[in-house]
Amino acid sequence: MNSNRPFYLCSREFKANPSVVYLDEVQVGSKEILVIAGPCAVESEEQIFQAALAVKEAGAQVLRGGLFKPRTSPYSFQGLGAEGLQLLIEAAKEHGLLTVTEVMDLDHLDILAERIDILQVGSRNMQNYPLLRALGKLKKPVLLKRGLSATVEEFLAAAEYIMVEGNDQVILCERGIRTFQNHFRFTPDISSIPLIHHLSHLPIILDPSHCCGKREWVAPIALAAIAAGADGLMIEVHPEPENALSDGPQSLYPQQFITLMEQVKNVASAVGRGLYGASAI
Amino acid sequence: MNSNRPFYLCSREFKANPSVVYLDEVQVGSKEILVIAGPCAVESEEQIFQAALAVKEAGAQVLRGGLFKPRTSPYSFQGLGAEGLQLLIEAAKEHGLLTVTEVMDLDHLDILAERIDILQVGSRNMQNYPLLRALGKLKKPVLLKRGLSATVEEFLAAAEYIMVEGNDQVILCERGIRTFQNHFRFTPDISSIPLIHHLSHLPIILDPSHCCGKREWVAPIALAAIAAGADGLMIEVHPEPENALSDGPQSLYPQQFITLMEQVKNVASAVGRGLYGASAI
Amino acid sequence: MNSNRPFYLCSREFKANPSVVYLDEVQVGSKEILVIAGPCAVESEEQIFQAALAVKEAGAQVLRGGLFKPRTSPYSFQGLGAEGLQLLIEAAKEHGLLTVTEVMDLDHLDILAERIDILQVGSRNMQNYPLLRALGKLKKPVLLKRGLSATVEEFLAAAEYIMVEGNDQVILCERGIRTFQNHFRFTPDISSIPLIHHLSHLPIILDPSHCCGKREWVAPIALAAIAAGADGLMIEVHPEPENALSDGPQSLYPQQFITLMEQVKNVASAVGRGLYGASAI
Amino acid sequence: MNSNRPFYLCSREFKANPSVVYLDEVQVGSKEILVIAGPCAVESEEQIFQAALAVKEAGAQVLRGGLFKPRTSPYSFQGLGAEGLQLLIEAAKEHGLLTVTEVMDLDHLDILAERIDILQVGSRNMQNYPLLRALGKLKKPVLLKRGLSATVEEFLAAAEYIMVEGNDQVILCERGIRTFQNHFRFTPDISSIPLIHHLSHLPIILDPSHCCGKREWVAPIALAAIAAGADGLMIEVHPEPENALSDGPQSLYPQQFITLMEQVKNVASAVGRGLYGASAI
Repeated sequence: MNSNRPFYLCSREFKANPSVVYLDEVQVGSKEILVIAGPCAVESEEQIFQAALAVKEAGAQVLRGGLFKPRTSPYSFQGLGAEGLQLLIEAAKEHGLLTVTEVMDLDHLDILAERIDILQVGSRNMQNYPLLRALGKLKKPVLLKRGLSATVEEFLAAAEYIMVEGNDQVILCERGIRTFQNHFRFTPDISSIPLIHHLSHLPIILDPSHCCGKREWVAPIALAAIAAGADGLMIEVHPEPENALSDGPQSLYPQQFITLMEQVKNVASAVGRGLYGASAI
Repeated sequence: MNSNRPFYLCSREFKANPSVVYLDEVQVGSKEILVIAGPCAVESEEQIFQAALAVKEAGAQVLRGGLFKPRTSPYSFQGLGAEGLQLLIEAAKEHGLLTVTEVMDLDHLDILAERIDILQVGSRNMQNYPLLRALGKLKKPVLLKRGLSATVEEFLAAAEYIMVEGNDQVILCERGIRTFQNHFRFTPDISSIPLIHHLSHLPIILDPSHCCGKREWVAPIALAAIAAGADGLMIEVHPEPENALSDGPQSLYPQQFITLMEQVKNVASAVGRGLYGASAI
Repeated sequence: MNSNRPFYLCSREFKANPSVVYLDEVQVGSKEILVIAGPCAVESEEQIFQAALAVKEAGAQVLRGGLFKPRTSPYSFQGLGAEGLQLLIEAAKEHGLLTVTEVMDLDHLDILAERIDILQVGSRNMQNYPLLRALGKLKKPVLLKRGLSATVEEFLAAAEYIMVEGNDQVILCERGIRTFQNHFRFTPDISSIPLIHHLSHLPIILDPSHCCGKREWVAPIALAAIAAGADGLMIEVHPEPENALSDGPQSLYPQQFITLMEQVKNVASAVGRGLYGASAI
Repeated sequence: MNSNRPFYLCSREFKANPSVVYLDEVQVGSKEILVIAGPCAVESEEQIFQAALAVKEAGAQVLRGGLFKPRTSPYSFQGLGAEGLQLLIEAAKEHGLLTVTEVMDLDHLDILAERIDILQVGSRNMQNYPLLRALGKLKKPVLLKRGLSATVEEFLAAAEYIMVEGNDQVILCERGIRTFQNHFRFTPDISSIPLIHHLSHLPIILDPSHCCGKREWVAPIALAAIAAGADGLMIEVHPEPENALSDGPQSLYPQQFITLMEQVKNVASAVGRGLYGASAI
């Protein structure tokens, strides 16, 4: 173990070959690109069912939808909570999609772990160690988002907190870093993709929606990530972005998402990767 | 309420005059400068009692000492946990000092709230909303540290999560931000002091130790904060820094801390402030 | 003219369609991707002739080679100066390549303008206004590199200084920004590519070599830029990187560059672009 | 010479004791604090004479006033140029003040060197090596401003370019760095003051006006710098800030400047320093 580094189990020194996280028939970190999509938050039955339909039609595999939303302001919409859980699961089930949602609170861990396919740790909680350790004790895939100014070492050390407890099903997710630049909400750190592949065997995907802040920039950043070697994407799609309760401006319209998936397929192919369900597009 | 801002109760619009947080006879945000000092972590009975003595002799009012340490690496010393609690309390009691320690885990909240004078939220947990809300339900002073790349608005919005639950005894603590500069661990953001005084009525103190990373720079940064209007300081002091289990290089020797307190008194006086117990120095 | 913006002539408001800069038969900003390659600095006759051969064989169009090097330390190799000019030109001529070199000093402007095809303004001089204005008075393509912490507005305002003097043949070049991340020399700001295409009609290329700092990361970042819509690339290639007088670790070996050009061709094709001389590869 | 560092002549290894730059009877880097003040730009005879009077009355020693202004936009006021030179000199002479102005263009160097006491290199030109070398060949004090994202090593290496040519009369000037924070124009990097004193024997002063961007924050940042050990201050003062052609919002009113000078005297005294002409206040 390199004593200068705060991680070991997630390093290439510990395991030279890329790890694959299995989600039923879907494999993350293998040749095919994982695509997670859906609204920022579950808002209503109609909204999440329409979103699920759009996600499925475009060819993605996992439906996202926040239930407990970590919002900067206590006065912003905080999510439907447990009430949204049943909606998310049913919408995903109807279209044969897997599910991912963020867990913020240890009190919700058991119920979410039982019913959701992938548990997400948000940027704000990347170094919430009690939460990471609790997730490490589960046998459940975890999607760990990078903190907005975490170094790659700190990011991997957070993954290590999960792995050291026994859970090695960790999917890393780059979501942009805080810099001086002022048009995007965050600067997409494409450099972290080859860097993480160099340091770690864990799969790494990109969330372009949160860093772009505007839907018009989601496509070029998503394609850049795939060209740089990302193992997947997580993209906000909403049936009616203009009426979204959160993150509307950065959510794609369903039709835009279909177009993006075609572009992703082409760029993935150019770098020797494929897209799940590509034949269905 | 200014809808562009994610906070209201902590703003000057809500309350024009500076708030004072009361800790027995000590007032934070009043004319006197609060000084918190002590080791990064409680390590042993001998260490914390010696530290408490040094803190008292130099004229500080509050003894710090971590019990549950949030460490970037899961392989670093994680603190003595509950075992250290009794030591911290007894050492403080022997010298008539108040106590502060960090709470990371909701499971520890009750026992810490019962026995510790000020509950600290660390940088990594600045946006751990379940923790903030739980602290908001207590009648207990909270020391909230700024996240390493939180904007001042985000910092104040985190305070708002505590206040909106009914607890207005919030002390803000600047601890440096992440920038490109590479000598200090973090860049002390002195600008946040007048900015927070402009936007908010809450008291703001500075922790120079964590941003400096080396003890030789602690004094000039501490003095700069006082000159810029900070309401207090939190400083790492260790009886034997070279043997510290964490943060040794940035911990002051007891004698250095005595010298610094004399300088703080002089600068405080130059800007119309005083130091608690200054006459005792 | 939008008075909030420090630029107009380079904006989409002034000219809605993308501008094309003509370099003999090569067009920058059109469907084909421009590729500039060569060593950081001209070091010797043998080195620059070998480099030119490698650049040509891989299918690039422009040979780069520094003559007057802006180096952080006055004790570092400062370039061959005027002595290298003849070598650069002859090496390029032998292989039918165009040339680009950096101009730092107004005293060199006339001689360089007469003999070099594209005049480069380096990052350190992005806001050297007398230099920009002097270049604006020429009828000569200018390659303007982004300052390491310039906002996109400041970058475009620098282009405006050239254009306001009458020269609209400006090629912008992103080269990475300074952030807290610590593995790459600079963080490649892929987000600036779609942003600049949104704000300006000028072509934008990426220099991945200077931000990566290590050759192993050049390819994924170059491909990311193309996927995001960049109009070209500038890449350091050296016949013997281990013996380079500057930037050796980030310079590609000739064989690596050939491989990269094949990948660039594939990704360019995936996003509807082409590579000059692609049929020749 | 430490080969890892891009500087030597300005280092403490080369010269252990602090250097003093002599400006007639004024010494920079000695016990007394240097204060430079005046408008951003010379705008008219009336303006600069009124400014000089205000600067003198408050007790400062050097009158600043830009002649050739480096402005982000080519459409902003660019300064009076040579026309303003005579006005600046006469206004200073009338009140027994020294003068400083920025040199951007080598063409102006001779005339400015002959008539101005201190030649300033602005942030944008910190790595304009032909300019630095030309200043190095003069026997004239140079005020070198830090680039907005230069590391301290790069800043000192820029000073080295001046010194290596034979001129050791260099005064360093911190002016804030670019970070993610969004209220101040730049983040005042108070940490650079003790760091530069640690690495270099050159004097270091702070320009609080450019980083604050608003006059209300100038005083606390100026006082912080003095408390941290700065050797001086450069402050924008304008007889009528609301009518200034540039930097109005960050310029102090004459009366504010008098108040600030009293505070500076007090804080300087608290850290064992003095203010030139303090007895006259």
